[in-house]
Amino acid sequence: MEKINYLLGYDNLKIVQADTSFKFSLDSILLPNFVTLNKNIKQILDIGTGNAPIPLILSTKTNALIIGIEIQKEIAQMAIKSVQLNHLENQIKIIHGDVKKNSFETDQFDIITCNPPYFKVTQNSHFNVNDSKTLARHEVALSLEDVISISKKLLKNNGVLAMVHRPERLVDILVEMRNQNIEPKKIQYVYPKEHSNSHILLVEGKKNGKPGIKILPPLYIHYEDGSYTEEVKKYFS
Amino acid sequence: MEKINYLLGYDNLKIVQADTSFKFSLDSILLPNFVTLNKNIKQILDIGTGNAPIPLILSTKTNALIIGIEIQKEIAQMAIKSVQLNHLENQIKIIHGDVKKNSFETDQFDIITCNPPYFKVTQNSHFNVNDSKTLARHEVALSLEDVISISKKLLKNNGVLAMVHRPERLVDILVEMRNQNIEPKKIQYVYPKEHSNSHILLVEGKKNGKPGIKILPPLYIHYEDGSYTEEVKKYFS
Repeated sequence: MEKINYLLGYDNLKIVQADTSFKFSLDSILLPNFVTLNKNIKQILDIGTGNAPIPLILSTKTNALIIGIEIQKEIAQMAIKSVQLNHLENQIKIIHGDVKKNSFETDQFDIITCNPPYFKVTQNSHFNVNDSKTLARHEVALSLEDVISISKKLLKNNGVLAMVHRPERLVDILVEMRNQNIEPKKIQYVYPKEHSNSHILLVEGKKNGKPGIKILPPLYIHYEDGSYTEEVKKYFS
Repeated sequence: MEKINYLLGYDNLKIVQADTSFKFSLDSILLPNFVTLNKNIKQILDIGTGNAPIPLILSTKTNALIIGIEIQKEIAQMAIKSVQLNHLENQIKIIHGDVKKNSFETDQFDIITCNPPYFKVTQNSHFNVNDSKTLARHEVALSLEDVISISKKLLKNNGVLAMVHRPERLVDILVEMRNQNIEPKKIQYVYPKEHSNSHILLVEGKKNGKPGIKILPPLYIHYEDGSYTEEVKKYFS
């Protein structure tokens, strides 16, 4: 059943979601707060946009046109409803389709954002490929390599790909980015709390950028008592 | 002029050093505290051992034989004196020589440690190649690729290479490790203090290891007031 919620911490942003599909998560809030934005940005693409949390948050930070593409029809329809509910039809365009078969122009985008499926599909993977959550979580319809090679094609020179992923896949991500001439330039590791290993990776690469990467200060989600840290609360308002 | 100092925080370890050469630094204390040790380790190689701070600290943590190799004769001699001063001749062997022309056996070592030169040599590099400090800081005599390819040859299967380096070179390091089948398994980022970018990278890879890496909790060196953090003080005792 579809529900209308407020996007966590964004009192003026409504989002449509359903219990049966992948709901927006902390990942989708972290990424638009991490990506490097500036006033010259004209077009942003969000690959696998889901119910559009990333475009919605980006709309509070930039005047650029934001295109979200989603392969699952019902979820794309929820994204369209969310955009309408927030009266953002002029800034956010939702496309139902497979980004691998897109008709975007080469060198069209200043920025590409993506919260891709995290898990590699292996011979040991057990899941129902018809399950809406499976497509969002496993590399069935979209692999890491797909995201990076598509970005290479669609980004302008010096355009930026920003992804949220799992730290476990760090080496795969950096190796593939460099292979595709999207040079990793900025990483932030997110930790559930102090003294824990990182559980979320934020990474940004620049098309045809020079080698040399910055590792930003760590971001902690919770204090020891379980409450959100001040840093994360800033993202929620 | 040579001096005898105590190895920072190690009241029972003396080290010989001179103002004209590269002195032991925090990097050399962080690495032996980062590398994964266990009781089955028989032989460790420290590449570019300098005046042997890494072997000296490792000797407090393992009974394995530790071999340090150093290309600069005067510095290797200081390392030998340091080993003698601490009566560790039975555990630590210092070799004056170029590790690229070594006669070690293939698959000889359980662990290789290295605090290599950090800076790439480019056409714009300006330095005196005869300067002792230059060899320690710039990739004149030993490049990142050298360290990793030598480690591939000299490590046992599942043996571990642990390096301390600059975060700026992260992508170079991970790409080259994977190329040489030394799979990166563990990273710790070191930060001068809270809210700063990382300035030191600790990374460990396993020969023929499976993909999948852990990002450990960050390590801060100083509190805001400039004093050493409790975590770092633990390394000093």
